[in-house]
Amino acid sequence: MHDRFLRACRREPTDVTPVWFMRQAGRYMREYRELRARYGMLELCRTPELALEVTLQPLRLGVDAAILFADILLPLEPMGAPFAFSADDGPVVHRPVQGPADVERLRVCEPEEDLGYVLEAVRLIRRELGGKTPLVGFAGGPFTLASYLVEGGRSSSFARTKAMMWQEPELFDLLLGKVGEVVRRFLRAQVAAGAQAVQLFDSWVGALCTTDYRRHVLAHSRAVLHDLAQTGVPVIHFGVGTSHLLEAQCEAGGTVIGVDWRLPLDVAWQRIGHNRAIQGNLDPLLLCAPPELAAEGAREVLRRAAGRPGHVFNLGHGIVPETPESTVQAVVDAVHAGLTAP
Amino acid sequence: MHDRFLRACRREPTDVTPVWFMRQAGRYMREYRELRARYGMLELCRTPELALEVTLQPLRLGVDAAILFADILLPLEPMGAPFAFSADDGPVVHRPVQGPADVERLRVCEPEEDLGYVLEAVRLIRRELGGKTPLVGFAGGPFTLASYLVEGGRSSSFARTKAMMWQEPELFDLLLGKVGEVVRRFLRAQVAAGAQAVQLFDSWVGALCTTDYRRHVLAHSRAVLHDLAQTGVPVIHFGVGTSHLLEAQCEAGGTVIGVDWRLPLDVAWQRIGHNRAIQGNLDPLLLCAPPELAAEGAREVLRRAAGRPGHVFNLGHGIVPETPESTVQAVVDAVHAGLTAP
Repeated sequence: MHDRFLRACRREPTDVTPVWFMRQAGRYMREYRELRARYGMLELCRTPELALEVTLQPLRLGVDAAILFADILLPLEPMGAPFAFSADDGPVVHRPVQGPADVERLRVCEPEEDLGYVLEAVRLIRRELGGKTPLVGFAGGPFTLASYLVEGGRSSSFARTKAMMWQEPELFDLLLGKVGEVVRRFLRAQVAAGAQAVQLFDSWVGALCTTDYRRHVLAHSRAVLHDLAQTGVPVIHFGVGTSHLLEAQCEAGGTVIGVDWRLPLDVAWQRIGHNRAIQGNLDPLLLCAPPELAAEGAREVLRRAAGRPGHVFNLGHGIVPETPESTVQAVVDAVHAGLTAP
Repeated sequence: MHDRFLRACRREPTDVTPVWFMRQAGRYMREYRELRARYGMLELCRTPELALEVTLQPLRLGVDAAILFADILLPLEPMGAPFAFSADDGPVVHRPVQGPADVERLRVCEPEEDLGYVLEAVRLIRRELGGKTPLVGFAGGPFTLASYLVEGGRSSSFARTKAMMWQEPELFDLLLGKVGEVVRRFLRAQVAAGAQAVQLFDSWVGALCTTDYRRHVLAHSRAVLHDLAQTGVPVIHFGVGTSHLLEAQCEAGGTVIGVDWRLPLDVAWQRIGHNRAIQGNLDPLLLCAPPELAAEGAREVLRRAAGRPGHVFNLGHGIVPETPESTVQAVVDAVHAGLTAP
C-alpha cells in the first residue's frame, strides 16, 4: 500500500494510517550527522546526489512519504538576498530587507534557472523511489519567508516584520507578493519535476493576531495554495501555534491542514471541517520520552482521529536533534499497528 | 475615579476603560534605565525603597493601576534554587531541578520570613499611593515557575520540563505542588500586605497541549487561584499563546482572564464567557509603531469590548524595551478618551 499517504490526503480509506515526520531526514540520524560532518547544510541542499541520499535515509524506518531534503530559505539567494547558516544552524541574511529600495531590488526568480539543483534533486529522488514511496515537495509560506528577509534571521518577536506590516502596509504587500510569486513558481516547478504532494510551511504565522493575518497575509497564502490546487496534487498547509488562525488558514486553502500539538486532533479537525484532511499532531518532544510513552501518545492521536479517512499522522513540528532513532521507529510501528494492537 | 480598575475587575460600570501595562515599569523608561545603570535587577527588587521608586515611575502616564516592581523568580532563592540574571537579563538557575532529590530539597518557604522585602515594598507602595491608585501584586504560575527551575533558565521548547512531566508525572506533580504552595502563600501575603489585586503570570503554559495542561497543571493553578479568590481581591489569570487553553484556564480560575493579542478581544471574551472580566489585548509591538497607529489599535480593542463592563485594557504581553514612552502615553490617552473621541 504505497499510496496510503496520497489516499489519506484525498480522504480515501487506507489500510492503516500513513505516517511521515517533518524533519525526518535530519540530525537525529547518525548517517545524517556523518554526512553533515563532511558537508555544509547548503552544500547538501545544492548537490542533488547528496540531497537524494539524505532524503532516502529515513525511509528504512517505514515512513509512508519521503520529504525532499532542502531548506525553505533556498529561494532567498536567487531573489538577491544571500544568507548563510551560523554555527548553531541559525540562518543569517547578510543584508536584511528594510525599505522600499530593498523590496524593489528583490528578484522574482525563475526556479528552473535559479533553483535547478532542487528540481534536479526532485527528479533524482522520484527516479530512485520508483513509485514505491510518494515524494513531498515544500516551500516556506509568504509570511514566514518574508519574516526571515526582514528580520535577517530567526526572531521570537517578529518586531521588524510587524513594524513594516503596520507602518508600510503597501510595501509589506509588495514584499509578500514577490515572495509569494516565487513560492508559487517554485512549488509548481517541484510538482512539474515530480513532487506528488507539496507542503507550505507557514511556520511563524502564529505570531500574528487573526485580524493581521486576514488583513495582510491570507490573500498571499491563498494565491499560492489555490494555484497549486490546480495541479491536482495534495497541498498541505502547515503552521505552528495557529490555534487562533485555523479557520483563516482554511480560507487561505490547502487540501490538508497541518496542525501543531496544542489542540487535540479531534477538536482541530472539527474546526477545520471534516471536508478536509488533517495532518498531525504528536508533540515532537514526546519522541524524546521512552518509546512506549511515545507510542501511547501516537495511539492517543489515532483515537482522536477516530478512524475517519483523511488523517496523515505527523508531529506537530519537526523532529528535534536529540530524538533517538529507535523511538521514531517505535512510533512508525505504533501508527501502522493502529488501535487494535495489544 | 481611582477605583475604575477594581470596578472593571468586578464587571461594574466605569467612567472610562481602565488601563495599565504589563512591564509598565521597565527599560523603556529613561528613569528606569538610569536606576538600572546604578543597581542590578535583583538589587532593585530587594530594596523596598527602590522597588517603590520604580513602581511609581509610570504613574505619571496616567495608568489606572500600579504593578508591584518585582520578578516572578524571586521565590526561587528561598526555595533553595538561587539564580542570577545574565548580561542580557536572562535568568540562570545555578543548579536546575533534575531529579527526585532536587525536588525533595526544595523548601516550601514562608513569604513573611523569606520574601519580606517584597512585602515591605507592597506596604511602602500602598502607603505612598494613599488610596489614589490601586496596587497589583503578582507571582508566576506553578507551571511557568517550575519550568525555570527545571530548564535552568529560559527555554523555547521546554524539553526538560515536558520530559519530567511525561516520564515522572508523580515527581512533576510534587514539584508543581511545592511551587504552587509557595505561590499561594506569597500571593496571600501580598494581599495581606496591601495588594488590592493579584495577577498570576502563567506565561509559558501555552507550550502545552490542552490534554497535558488539564492532566498535569490545571489542578495546581486552580489551588492557587481558588484560594486567592477567598481573599476577595480580584485575581487576574494570564497566559501567552493560550488560544487553545482558554476554557481550561477559566476552569482553573480567575476573576479576570488576561489574554494575549492573538484572538480578537470579542472572540476571546465569548469563549471565556461574559460572566468573567477580561484583560488585554493590544500587540505590545504596536507600541513601537507611530503613536497614531498604536492609538488606533487601542480603539480597535475598545470596539471589540463593545462597552461591556468588565474590560481592563492592557497589552497582550509586556512592554518591550524599545517602546517610546510617548507612545505609551498616547495609548493611555486613547483608552481614556474612548470611542467617542475625534
